[in-house]
Amino acid sequence: MATRASPDPKPAVTGDTAARVPGDTYVQSFARGLEVIRSFSAQAPTQTLSEVAERAGLTRAGARRILLTLQTLGYVVTDGRQFRLTPRILDLGFAYLSSMPIWNLAEPVMESLVAEVKESCSAAALDGTDIVYVMRVPTHKIMRINLGVGSRLPAYCTAMGRMLLADLPADEAARLLAASDLQPLTKHTIIDIDALLAKVAQARKQGWCLVIQELEEGLIAMAAPLVNRAGRTVAALNISGQVNRTTAKVMQETMLPALLAATREMSRLLEMQKG
Amino acid sequence: MATRASPDPKPAVTGDTAARVPGDTYVQSFARGLEVIRSFSAQAPTQTLSEVAERAGLTRAGARRILLTLQTLGYVVTDGRQFRLTPRILDLGFAYLSSMPIWNLAEPVMESLVAEVKESCSAAALDGTDIVYVMRVPTHKIMRINLGVGSRLPAYCTAMGRMLLADLPADEAARLLAASDLQPLTKHTIIDIDALLAKVAQARKQGWCLVIQELEEGLIAMAAPLVNRAGRTVAALNISGQVNRTTAKVMQETMLPALLAATREMSRLLEMQKG
Repeated sequence: MATRASPDPKPAVTGDTAARVPGDTYVQSFARGLEVIRSFSAQAPTQTLSEVAERAGLTRAGARRILLTLQTLGYVVTDGRQFRLTPRILDLGFAYLSSMPIWNLAEPVMESLVAEVKESCSAAALDGTDIVYVMRVPTHKIMRINLGVGSRLPAYCTAMGRMLLADLPADEAARLLAASDLQPLTKHTIIDIDALLAKVAQARKQGWCLVIQELEEGLIAMAAPLVNRAGRTVAALNISGQVNRTTAKVMQETMLPALLAATREMSRLLEMQKG
Repeated sequence: MATRASPDPKPAVTGDTAARVPGDTYVQSFARGLEVIRSFSAQAPTQTLSEVAERAGLTRAGARRILLTLQTLGYVVTDGRQFRLTPRILDLGFAYLSSMPIWNLAEPVMESLVAEVKESCSAAALDGTDIVYVMRVPTHKIMRINLGVGSRLPAYCTAMGRMLLADLPADEAARLLAASDLQPLTKHTIIDIDALLAKVAQARKQGWCLVIQELEEGLIAMAAPLVNRAGRTVAALNISGQVNRTTAKVMQETMLPALLAATREMSRLLEMQKG
């Protein structure tokens, strides 16, 4: 499965372009610098100055200043022609992960769940119209999905996505769905907004969500919410598998109780935390 | 085990402060922005404007401009008083991880290794005097180390660190060790530079490295290198365990062949890759 390319670094829904003018509330050189970091990818693991300038939409001079700054700070190395990111760049994302102590507490719970149901378990948070994986415990089966921390998938066709949309006010969920790039990824994918809102409402009502082959043929996933002290869903937890070995019936009858027990335990741990 | 706080974002060894003056080769506002991102942590998951300014060493006005930029770009949200990072920040680290396609190929190999030896397996790269975890496959045992992707540990007292130092020219390894904060973390920790260089040379010669209780009492780890087409070590792979259940003899006699087979397989996959 191809994961999503990261979206443009702007609010997907509000599209607040007025705020993106240099001045007291917008530091353009900082925004450009982040764009340079994001220009590196699996397709462009090393880049020349010209390639960075083109991908990040900068002049060569602008790209050069940013790259030299990144090099001085140890985030980029170069052989004189090709530039590449260093592992120090993980300090930026890791600062986020380590700022959410839930993930440290969550891991043993997720590992127990994986050991029990023998399927992979992931946690994701909502970012605009996408879900972003924040933790994953794979099972040791050969067939499985390769979705590391930081991977993105569309919210509308994923179980975790619908569970996360279910925590939003209905008009906000509708707005996000309307802003989504709704595509029939399989012949089962729901792309009608009213039908999607009905699925979201159902997820909200029953407290869990099952999505069968809407993201990819053969894939089935079930999600439940992690709820904080204020009653808000901070992330969703899922169990995902292959529909030919894990039917909807098996998921619902044997795995759902384990998933709900895990999310209750994690929500309890969350409640005990400050902030 | 406490993982290391991230170092100052400057080259640990060269300390190139001359380059950190605003101008054609240094964009100060970009560097300040990255410092703001790094100011969020497990100790400071949410911060007020004043807290960000203090932790990042900025004026309130400067911190405000950066925070508003991050907010416009969707990397930060605020309730008006408290700011926190969003999962979108993971895009930055993901740019690095996805720019190293080895990690996608590596995971199945690492999972097979974990299934075989029943101990955790990690991969790390060198960043100055530290190693940075880039991948981890935990075992499902109860006792295990919590080191997520992006975690840092000192190179001098870790098996992966010594294996990574072994790929450097001897004078460069000596320079990094001299720049390290050498501390007797346990009564077994080697902190003498010549003795450390001898261990590094031994690791280079034998192609693997065993470190017993030098990082933490009770901890044992063995590492081997991942080598690219050019013959350079791009990362190290380890197996780590508790010394009371996994002795050095067991590691060396039963796990070492599996570790070396895994690194050979991964190095072969690496060689097939471009770049």
